[in-house]
Amino acid sequence: MSTSTNLPSVTVLGLGPMGRALAGAFLRAGLRTTVWNRTPGRDRELIAQGAAGAATAEEAVAAGDLTVVCVVNYDAADAVLRPDSVTRALKGHTVVNLSADTPDRARRTARWAEEHGIRYLDGAIMTAAPSIGTPEAVFLYSGPRELYEEYRPVLAALGGGHTHLGAEIGRAATFDIALLDLFWTAMAGYAHAVAIARAEGVTAGELAPFAQGIGAILPPLFAEFAQDADDGSYSGAINPLTSAASTMSHVIGLSEAHGIDAGVMRAAEGLARRTIGLGHGTDGFIRVAEVLGRR
Amino acid sequence: MSTSTNLPSVTVLGLGPMGRALAGAFLRAGLRTTVWNRTPGRDRELIAQGAAGAATAEEAVAAGDLTVVCVVNYDAADAVLRPDSVTRALKGHTVVNLSADTPDRARRTARWAEEHGIRYLDGAIMTAAPSIGTPEAVFLYSGPRELYEEYRPVLAALGGGHTHLGAEIGRAATFDIALLDLFWTAMAGYAHAVAIARAEGVTAGELAPFAQGIGAILPPLFAEFAQDADDGSYSGAINPLTSAASTMSHVIGLSEAHGIDAGVMRAAEGLARRTIGLGHGTDGFIRVAEVLGRR
Repeated sequence: MSTSTNLPSVTVLGLGPMGRALAGAFLRAGLRTTVWNRTPGRDRELIAQGAAGAATAEEAVAAGDLTVVCVVNYDAADAVLRPDSVTRALKGHTVVNLSADTPDRARRTARWAEEHGIRYLDGAIMTAAPSIGTPEAVFLYSGPRELYEEYRPVLAALGGGHTHLGAEIGRAATFDIALLDLFWTAMAGYAHAVAIARAEGVTAGELAPFAQGIGAILPPLFAEFAQDADDGSYSGAINPLTSAASTMSHVIGLSEAHGIDAGVMRAAEGLARRTIGLGHGTDGFIRVAEVLGRR
Repeated sequence: MSTSTNLPSVTVLGLGPMGRALAGAFLRAGLRTTVWNRTPGRDRELIAQGAAGAATAEEAVAAGDLTVVCVVNYDAADAVLRPDSVTRALKGHTVVNLSADTPDRARRTARWAEEHGIRYLDGAIMTAAPSIGTPEAVFLYSGPRELYEEYRPVLAALGGGHTHLGAEIGRAATFDIALLDLFWTAMAGYAHAVAIARAEGVTAGELAPFAQGIGAILPPLFAEFAQDADDGSYSGAINPLTSAASTMSHVIGLSEAHGIDAGVMRAAEGLARRTIGLGHGTDGFIRVAEVLGRR
């Protein structure tokens, strides 16, 4: 790293709630931190905390050994990073892109970085902004391991757990999307459960402790089902797909009896029924993953 | 209770994996247990453990102060309980129906029970058969509290936690369906996440520890969102609906780029977009529950 002090300098591009949380954590760790946001005015509080404000993205990236980008997606990241002046200023510097997008966008960004002599790591943040700087934060990375190892002490300033998933640059985005798939599907299930409960006169607060109980039984099942999926064993001895589909029908029936859209569960039931139709009715539910993946 | 010994006698109707687990737990607790199943032969192991086999459902229910019914749904329960001979034999006895179905079916069964002088509790088992007799089992009940209190010591033989949700007979089924809605929707999300990960060369086993991490962050969010839903506060300061919808689009894009059906997430995204369209884009995701429930 090329700073004149022992501490590397960091630039944060993008000052939404997450970018501000990242910059705040770098500042609290005593790192020289430069901040920039497309829409001005978002840097005020950070400057009060000791950050350097930059007038342009070019000026911002020139000030940092490491530039952390946290914007809404890779279109937004490209708009910030790819103007010639910014790309030139990044030459020889390192970019960690913590914006969310698809693995293919990460691969395209890595190619652009290589063509311009920019060192590049892709990353994903799996927890919300308030987790940054706390043990709860979860960061995933992919790209060159040496580069990750070099900046690990700097990234540690963000708190929480940091995992390098491998050299293939698309892996962080793959994990990110798969995990957000799980997260938002589960949340859609919860919102729907609350709607059904309310239609029957049960409040969300009454349901919540039991919903938390369901949440608690999911992680061990995820581990068990992962093993089934990787082994191709798909055991349905305890809970066969036919039984899951029957339960799903009850949910749809009650939902629609109350005039509540059951589209999410209808789609899930459709997958279960399709998998049963392919002869897997006595298998466990995770057989659905294998059927989904068939080309 | 009208037994000649201090211990009440129990009858279990329905000897699928769950019914057998229930009967086994009653036997281990030293209760006189009679078992019956429509298809013969399922009672062999239980009889070896000390259960009394019954030739007919009528004979079985006559032998038990408490009859526990655990069949696939209320059509199946009706087929067992409503023949005249069985209904007559149940007069003055107590039935706890642990079969799964809708709250309305529970209400209809309660009316039938009242008309025939049968004491009735509705119930639901929220955990799988191997949990029975262990601290992990979760049982929910609704119906007359005195009746629940009377049989609570007997039901305690099944292990785990027992909760009486209220006198309204439909409540156990409401909680059951709402919680299974959450459970199976989350499982559909997990199966889909595994399919996406595999299409990008990531195994289910690699994804699992992080999926477990997502599972772990759900319960506190359920509690927080329940409060938002009951208060009508719907704060989206940290994670607005627009941001959730944008993430959902990424999931759909990657899924469909791999030819993987994204119907579940398309339905969930549709709910998010519909809620945004109603002017709630800066609200938190749980606002979806309120929009779903509008008539």
